[in-house]
Amino acid sequence: MLDNIHIILINTTHPGNIGAAARAMKTMGLNNLILANPYAKFPSAEITARAAGADSVLENTKVFASFAEAIKDFNVVIGTSAEERRLPLQRLTARECAEFVCAQNPAEKIAIVFGTERSGMSNEELALCQRQVVIPTSPDCTSLNLAAAVQVIAYEVFVAACAAERAEMPIKAAHDRLATSAELQQFYEHLEQTLLEIEFLNPVVDKKIFPRLTRLFNRACLETGEVNLLRGLLKALRKNSQTGCHPRESGDPG
Amino acid sequence: MLDNIHIILINTTHPGNIGAAARAMKTMGLNNLILANPYAKFPSAEITARAAGADSVLENTKVFASFAEAIKDFNVVIGTSAEERRLPLQRLTARECAEFVCAQNPAEKIAIVFGTERSGMSNEELALCQRQVVIPTSPDCTSLNLAAAVQVIAYEVFVAACAAERAEMPIKAAHDRLATSAELQQFYEHLEQTLLEIEFLNPVVDKKIFPRLTRLFNRACLETGEVNLLRGLLKALRKNSQTGCHPRESGDPG
Repeated sequence: MLDNIHIILINTTHPGNIGAAARAMKTMGLNNLILANPYAKFPSAEITARAAGADSVLENTKVFASFAEAIKDFNVVIGTSAEERRLPLQRLTARECAEFVCAQNPAEKIAIVFGTERSGMSNEELALCQRQVVIPTSPDCTSLNLAAAVQVIAYEVFVAACAAERAEMPIKAAHDRLATSAELQQFYEHLEQTLLEIEFLNPVVDKKIFPRLTRLFNRACLETGEVNLLRGLLKALRKNSQTGCHPRESGDPG
Repeated sequence: MLDNIHIILINTTHPGNIGAAARAMKTMGLNNLILANPYAKFPSAEITARAAGADSVLENTKVFASFAEAIKDFNVVIGTSAEERRLPLQRLTARECAEFVCAQNPAEKIAIVFGTERSGMSNEELALCQRQVVIPTSPDCTSLNLAAAVQVIAYEVFVAACAAERAEMPIKAAHDRLATSAELQQFYEHLEQTLLEIEFLNPVVDKKIFPRLTRLFNRACLETGEVNLLRGLLKALRKNSQTGCHPRESGDPG
């Protein structure tokens, strides 16, 4: 689904950043890395080590002599830069960029481009782009590590692609069946009855305690199994309390 | 605006990851780093080098002997883990986690926790958390570098905080002060002791019941007042169980 999206790194100096960028891409389903005139030797043991298993990305990586050469057959080229330029491009946040990318026809070749570690993209390089993407940062520290910037952009693209596909992100439904309202109400009645019996509740003295308990359990969104567990506990309490005496029938002054 | 949010790294091995995590935090306006029993020496030249200017975060970093010790006075503890667990917590995506964090009262101390490079957080560590956060990833490669994971979470928190500020959301956290981890642990000990006494728990027969109860209460994010209310209930149960009948002095036939 993300086959048309490419990450281009220009003039990268540190091999560790190339490896880490490959790993960042792989975690987010991006497999197309392009190195434009890399200053670091490629491939190398250090790159492979830092890629930490993203070998398929490294094997698939293409190297070009220049940025201009690299983007020749691309349809959409988006440059990353924190700075505002003299001739500003349309600026997108990382999230807007991801939505923009996912809204394109999958037949379009799309590049998201990262400049050097030291100074980012030059004005000349940005002039070859159709859009500029900016990762929002604290004004105190605007410079992300190169691979960290790739990670954030790749993450946003992956999340947007999942949303676009309406593919469920593989995260939901980590709970069992939630209790129905009816099951909850039965539990609450059982709870109230038991707490009255053990005289923890006294509705004359304090009407607020029981609503505070139901609020707490409501907030937890109980599963059916948990309601059953809690009702089992209430039964045990009642039994325990009744073995010594019978709490209600007779002679209670209350 | 993000002063109440802390990043906790447990048993981190590689100094470079600590430095890179500090830099990732600083770019996103997060200044509170905690190291729980770090395996790497702290501070060190390598950590400072990789922090690349995030010195203020390193100077502010606190080191604790254990994770449990580190979170004692925290109100909300969120564990990062890709895996589904036997007793799953409520799972949030990174974005949902950021919105959840920004919706809390700024007086609450909030921790977002990252496990070891090799294996992430243990089941025991996750059991001390109220929520689990998952960074969506490609199924082909689910393991982000530690500092890259910190970067993504910090980025989402920063973006959510900016959105919250821009919208000047007037409605914060409709709850009282949340309980600290220490208050929760004391409650759980009290609960376990009481349930053993009334013989609802039998650790020989079923080890799973008690963890299911703590999981439920963790999910609810209990307020201090609710913990006190529940402990009052436990006291009433114990008294009731010890006298063999209800606790009042007067005229009861039991």
